[in-house]
Amino acid sequence: MKIFEEIESEVQSYARAFPRLFHKAEGEFLYDTDGNQYLDFLGGAGTLNYGHNNPILKKALMAYIEDNGITHGLDLHTDAKREFLETLNEKILKPRDLEYMVQFTGPTGTNAVEAAIKVARNCTGRENIIAFTNGFHGVSLGSLALTGNSHHRGAAGVSLNGVSRVPYDGYLGEDIDTTAYLDKLLSDSSSGVDHPAAVIVETVQGEGGINAASMEWLRNLDAVCKQHDVLLIVDDIQAGCGRTGRFFSFEEAGIKPDIVTLSKSLSGYGLPLAVVLLRPELDQWRPGEHNGTFRGNNMAFVTATTAINEFWSDDTFAAQVRAKGQIIEEHLGRIADKYGEGNFTCRGRGMMQGLNCVNGEIAGKITKAAFRRGLIIETSGADDHVVKTLCPLIISEDNLRAGLKIVEDSVAEVLAKVDEVPEERDFFEAAE
Amino acid sequence: MKIFEEIESEVQSYARAFPRLFHKAEGEFLYDTDGNQYLDFLGGAGTLNYGHNNPILKKALMAYIEDNGITHGLDLHTDAKREFLETLNEKILKPRDLEYMVQFTGPTGTNAVEAAIKVARNCTGRENIIAFTNGFHGVSLGSLALTGNSHHRGAAGVSLNGVSRVPYDGYLGEDIDTTAYLDKLLSDSSSGVDHPAAVIVETVQGEGGINAASMEWLRNLDAVCKQHDVLLIVDDIQAGCGRTGRFFSFEEAGIKPDIVTLSKSLSGYGLPLAVVLLRPELDQWRPGEHNGTFRGNNMAFVTATTAINEFWSDDTFAAQVRAKGQIIEEHLGRIADKYGEGNFTCRGRGMMQGLNCVNGEIAGKITKAAFRRGLIIETSGADDHVVKTLCPLIISEDNLRAGLKIVEDSVAEVLAKVDEVPEERDFFEAAE
Amino acid sequence: MKIFEEIESEVQSYARAFPRLFHKAEGEFLYDTDGNQYLDFLGGAGTLNYGHNNPILKKALMAYIEDNGITHGLDLHTDAKREFLETLNEKILKPRDLEYMVQFTGPTGTNAVEAAIKVARNCTGRENIIAFTNGFHGVSLGSLALTGNSHHRGAAGVSLNGVSRVPYDGYLGEDIDTTAYLDKLLSDSSSGVDHPAAVIVETVQGEGGINAASMEWLRNLDAVCKQHDVLLIVDDIQAGCGRTGRFFSFEEAGIKPDIVTLSKSLSGYGLPLAVVLLRPELDQWRPGEHNGTFRGNNMAFVTATTAINEFWSDDTFAAQVRAKGQIIEEHLGRIADKYGEGNFTCRGRGMMQGLNCVNGEIAGKITKAAFRRGLIIETSGADDHVVKTLCPLIISEDNLRAGLKIVEDSVAEVLAKVDEVPEERDFFEAAE
Amino acid sequence: MKIFEEIESEVQSYARAFPRLFHKAEGEFLYDTDGNQYLDFLGGAGTLNYGHNNPILKKALMAYIEDNGITHGLDLHTDAKREFLETLNEKILKPRDLEYMVQFTGPTGTNAVEAAIKVARNCTGRENIIAFTNGFHGVSLGSLALTGNSHHRGAAGVSLNGVSRVPYDGYLGEDIDTTAYLDKLLSDSSSGVDHPAAVIVETVQGEGGINAASMEWLRNLDAVCKQHDVLLIVDDIQAGCGRTGRFFSFEEAGIKPDIVTLSKSLSGYGLPLAVVLLRPELDQWRPGEHNGTFRGNNMAFVTATTAINEFWSDDTFAAQVRAKGQIIEEHLGRIADKYGEGNFTCRGRGMMQGLNCVNGEIAGKITKAAFRRGLIIETSGADDHVVKTLCPLIISEDNLRAGLKIVEDSVAEVLAKVDEVPEERDFFEAAE
Repeated sequence: MKIFEEIESEVQSYARAFPRLFHKAEGEFLYDTDGNQYLDFLGGAGTLNYGHNNPILKKALMAYIEDNGITHGLDLHTDAKREFLETLNEKILKPRDLEYMVQFTGPTGTNAVEAAIKVARNCTGRENIIAFTNGFHGVSLGSLALTGNSHHRGAAGVSLNGVSRVPYDGYLGEDIDTTAYLDKLLSDSSSGVDHPAAVIVETVQGEGGINAASMEWLRNLDAVCKQHDVLLIVDDIQAGCGRTGRFFSFEEAGIKPDIVTLSKSLSGYGLPLAVVLLRPELDQWRPGEHNGTFRGNNMAFVTATTAINEFWSDDTFAAQVRAKGQIIEEHLGRIADKYGEGNFTCRGRGMMQGLNCVNGEIAGKITKAAFRRGLIIETSGADDHVVKTLCPLIISEDNLRAGLKIVEDSVAEVLAKVDEVPEERDFFEAAE
Repeated sequence: MKIFEEIESEVQSYARAFPRLFHKAEGEFLYDTDGNQYLDFLGGAGTLNYGHNNPILKKALMAYIEDNGITHGLDLHTDAKREFLETLNEKILKPRDLEYMVQFTGPTGTNAVEAAIKVARNCTGRENIIAFTNGFHGVSLGSLALTGNSHHRGAAGVSLNGVSRVPYDGYLGEDIDTTAYLDKLLSDSSSGVDHPAAVIVETVQGEGGINAASMEWLRNLDAVCKQHDVLLIVDDIQAGCGRTGRFFSFEEAGIKPDIVTLSKSLSGYGLPLAVVLLRPELDQWRPGEHNGTFRGNNMAFVTATTAINEFWSDDTFAAQVRAKGQIIEEHLGRIADKYGEGNFTCRGRGMMQGLNCVNGEIAGKITKAAFRRGLIIETSGADDHVVKTLCPLIISEDNLRAGLKIVEDSVAEVLAKVDEVPEERDFFEAAE
Repeated sequence: MKIFEEIESEVQSYARAFPRLFHKAEGEFLYDTDGNQYLDFLGGAGTLNYGHNNPILKKALMAYIEDNGITHGLDLHTDAKREFLETLNEKILKPRDLEYMVQFTGPTGTNAVEAAIKVARNCTGRENIIAFTNGFHGVSLGSLALTGNSHHRGAAGVSLNGVSRVPYDGYLGEDIDTTAYLDKLLSDSSSGVDHPAAVIVETVQGEGGINAASMEWLRNLDAVCKQHDVLLIVDDIQAGCGRTGRFFSFEEAGIKPDIVTLSKSLSGYGLPLAVVLLRPELDQWRPGEHNGTFRGNNMAFVTATTAINEFWSDDTFAAQVRAKGQIIEEHLGRIADKYGEGNFTCRGRGMMQGLNCVNGEIAGKITKAAFRRGLIIETSGADDHVVKTLCPLIISEDNLRAGLKIVEDSVAEVLAKVDEVPEERDFFEAAE
Repeated sequence: MKIFEEIESEVQSYARAFPRLFHKAEGEFLYDTDGNQYLDFLGGAGTLNYGHNNPILKKALMAYIEDNGITHGLDLHTDAKREFLETLNEKILKPRDLEYMVQFTGPTGTNAVEAAIKVARNCTGRENIIAFTNGFHGVSLGSLALTGNSHHRGAAGVSLNGVSRVPYDGYLGEDIDTTAYLDKLLSDSSSGVDHPAAVIVETVQGEGGINAASMEWLRNLDAVCKQHDVLLIVDDIQAGCGRTGRFFSFEEAGIKPDIVTLSKSLSGYGLPLAVVLLRPELDQWRPGEHNGTFRGNNMAFVTATTAINEFWSDDTFAAQVRAKGQIIEEHLGRIADKYGEGNFTCRGRGMMQGLNCVNGEIAGKITKAAFRRGLIIETSGADDHVVKTLCPLIISEDNLRAGLKIVEDSVAEVLAKVDEVPEERDFFEAAE
């Protein structure tokens, strides 16, 4: 692995936590070049909801490539795009009574966020965007201004402007509805918070520490936005595409955001793709105003279409996700109760759950211990203090329970003998 | 094509100029669903240097997918990434005596630019970046501030800051070396141009109208940067990967930029990929500071590695590009002479050439006329007044000449009978 | 008064509320050219703490001018400046155990604020400043970013950046200590509120609606700043110079801010003067870095020195202010109780008090009614809903009570017969 | 002078160059407490055009104070303001066929500039302002962004945005008309210079090094502005009020700016005063949008009115200024020729002239040598390399020549024996 040390930038992160050379992957498993198998609770940070190299998607993709389908077409109309749009419309939007225009942005989540705030600013003629404490929306300059994390913000090298920060659900304590504070800021002409173009929110904050907003809070937020003529953007890049037990994470709250961003698991195969969904009257783009070379990733259209057809033609899959979410919640809850001494808490929604260990050092030891046991799992939150489960949604119940058992064992190990655990171990269980 | 009208955003651009439904592509040809063949002088806006679905790359890609190679691995070490890094190092960097660290950013050009200016700002502790008139570097907020085009800038909805604009080579007339002006601005402590972190430059401005800087100007620019301790970033996203007749567009000038951005044709197959090359001492990133879900596009690594091995193991391919560039230059020069009445000029370098028609309306009519003849070709420049040739580098000489002949015929048609040309024609030559 | 309509800008404000031509003033009285006398509860918006044309100050000023003392000396050392500095040091700073360097900025409050935040940013190397809801700090660009009022902010025409807004004391309700929220924001590395250079606060928000922070809140704020290594700036431009019953408004809280801004009543005679007081280790200015043509207003030094000697050699004057403040508080309290029907409240500290009428229209009618009775009094607050008393501190108790009686009569009139009051009356009581 | 070291901020500048304790001043002379007389070629940095404590102005001022005229009236209508407006209108505006609305801003030049750019941005709905290399417009945040000097800019601690920098007249060499470059930037939709609200210019750059624009360049600039619908702001704070030989510095060019800022010598007595003159259709201020406690400095109105009546009722005074300007120009020209060895140049217009010594160290030695001879004179320019004459316009020809002789002697001394000059001398010529 010398070449990585020699010429890959120091910016690498996951490669430090899981220092193996990987070469294959299938479903919920990764394999390294030594033949070791790893259960994947990281899931491409929410990108692999349907597992690695899902065979149904793979088949469609192979056929498309074999047939010399358009690989790169800028924003030209293609068969693949047409099918994707039709499928998205018929299987996702219409059944949910959602009427959105679909914008293909550069195929990254951050690019979709950039486009979303541009259109919000242009349609309203206002600059300010309300973002929340612990929010994460990407690291290109526009998105980075919305992101709360100081590690990422500090890298900007310039001021991050045009954003007002407001406390997320629960930030001021359980009894305080922070949307009331937002309402006051927007009602008070001397609050110093300029009338915003939009509010951008994750219904569950992934990078921020698996903080899940309540349905009531989301409805209140929606109401405050409507009252003050402010657009509501749901950044559903991580929580969307089924992660919380429904295609969109906001469905459960019964709200219909003005703008939605999707990426990560949208292509279903780990292929870069990102879209912005816009209420039709907000689609005020002029031709090419927001562009990007890879904005029509046709291979991704193929797998995305297949994934929607396969998993979202009825509620079967979603119901399974909700059931597995229940399993995770219960298991993590038991772990918290058993080992947390009143400090640990379980948090999240659907299959986006986390174990809040309060302390980042402990959480880091837990994921390290889990990795030694063959489980790839990461932390999130301001202090990396939350062990988060982002396993593929298609994981078998057995493997899900096996993974949660590894988490529990790792917690037990770390909390029992913090001082004795060696920093690194040579042994790895061979796959198969 | 109803679905596109119904739910695809108004932001679409190329789809308006070439309103067909495409479904296949091979080499320098695109095919629509009616079986029509189109010669592609757009080349994915510089992304398809090795042609559509290049069979050698396709074979490697199919094998990788078939074998369940890692599709999405965040920034984990993988076989595919290792091979890409080793090949890039051995076949590209070392032979050119370039020592760079390689950063995988989000797989879009604009994301690479965002990372490049972040690292420049952080390494120097300065905010200001010098960008040039008519420069184009992307449309996410950080890159957009560098981009000159008002159509794109106007969509930001916020101020675009931290950038000082300086005239590109030739902007003040042929006799004025604008690097001398830059030198004066940087030498004068009251110039009002803050000491910059970096200068970012395209050696040939693609979107800006195929403006090619002279080798002397580039060397002077490099010298001014060195003298004032300012980093030089070459944005080689469009002009790199062989487009000008060498892998990097700056090679001919004999300079070694501090930072280089690459994307577009890097994967060689139209798959999203982007990198930042950094002088080792500038690789001051902390883990994960700049991240992005799709920053390790392993399928793109596979095709990129294959492309480098295939095309860049020796100078054969580059020499062919230079030879074809000569053909283009001569043919466009003849067109300019014959039809331009002293107004038209030919501009560019290698296979990145343009016919400056001065007037955007005329240029638009020419590309429209060409499309009726089965040629896909676009304009660029502030007024879309430059007809640009960005055909795949692997185009056969015959097809290249055929395409240039269509350009000439279209010019002749437009200039001869501007008023008589129908807006749209029904006739299209069937493919095959 | 034709000339005002003809060529004075529409920006005029007080002149609209009090449309008379004034030509003389003495103590707590203004006189118009028709010989009408007005009791002044506006007090130059806090600039005339020692009354109009205070005879003691006037005498010193006349002598200085007569003697050809330096009028304009940029920042040259002068007799007048020396005496001012010595007097400020001996009579104000030393007795309060305050050790500050004195910076003479441009002679306006907003310029002092600009200098204060510059030095805070430079000393800390950070950009962000915490400002509070309803704060007012001036309208030049740097200060305007700190100011909460949307009427003023909207005039900027550009983004107002580098400031994070936090709720002032009481903004989230009486039970919530907003410094705890600030503490959380600063403790949480993902809060999205960048580590600030400084917090800037008014101990009583004048323009914001006479909101008085509690002493405990101020101490908590001071503690939070210290804990997070953030500078505390008290903007004492309106509340300082005795207005709250002590020279500095923060004395009562027992805190010692890192930086203090003073202006308005500092010269004591209405002459422009402004200073920044800095803890010595913060005085990291390089020569002339912050400058301004009128930064040494020597006439103002003369009156300022005289004022300090006259009013601040012992506690007599301050005690009188506190006593009169008590009178105001009681009287306004009675008015609120008697007429407010549970809605009106009295608020403020010392002789900086206000009657919160909740409704801006009612408050406006009250001040209009008062003006017809010969009292000049203004409103403040986001909706101009607070009738505020900023009468000269030297006002006689009789005149103070007379003015308060006019306020009461006006409240009675407005609340009793809102519909019957004519918009404008011709009758004015002649002076004397 | 211990107190200055003890508690006056390190920001002091002139006090360092002229370390004396001053206590009186009259006409073109300053006096220190030891009785030494100094000839003043600094003139309050352009504030004392009518000399120190001009007896005619003094008389009017004393009478006003004696009579208890309004000292501080916010923006209330007063006798003093009325007379000032009428006089300004009759004696200055009407005779020059200028129709302007008058806005009283905070009484500092920088505050007038802040207001000017606010109104320009609001009236046009654009953010960008064009400012020139070496321009100086003040140091509050809005003005500082316009100012070129890095010493001042560096103190901001935040980004200075919303401004595009363009080369001033002569910056690209004598043969290049930089307004043509501006025209190109504004004509080119991809120049990257956003369509600006306004251009702000000094006709002679004072702090920037006494760079005088040619009349032709000013007319071209005016034409470019008109052509592109961009407002022209002349910042006449230093060059106005007669300094160049006419009341406004732009009169000679025959242009009528959209907005003019005035301050410094406007009050005529060194009292703080600043105004913005606006074409009537630009006076779109809403009441109080831009405010400031000292925006109606009534004492300054009194002296300003008197000064206008005294000096600007006919062309006599202006003609004298032009004649004296000729004397300065000739004398400095001779000095440059005699001692400059081809390097020194004379520059400026009217009585705003400078000797460009190229080298800041030499210029500094010259002013130091001059000070030892009893002449107070300063440098300006990026490297403090220009010895500038800003003596009171009312200076007698004898004293003017005496001062210029001192400059010449100082130049001779410095250039003859650079190494031998002691850093500091004890001897000072006693006054009289």
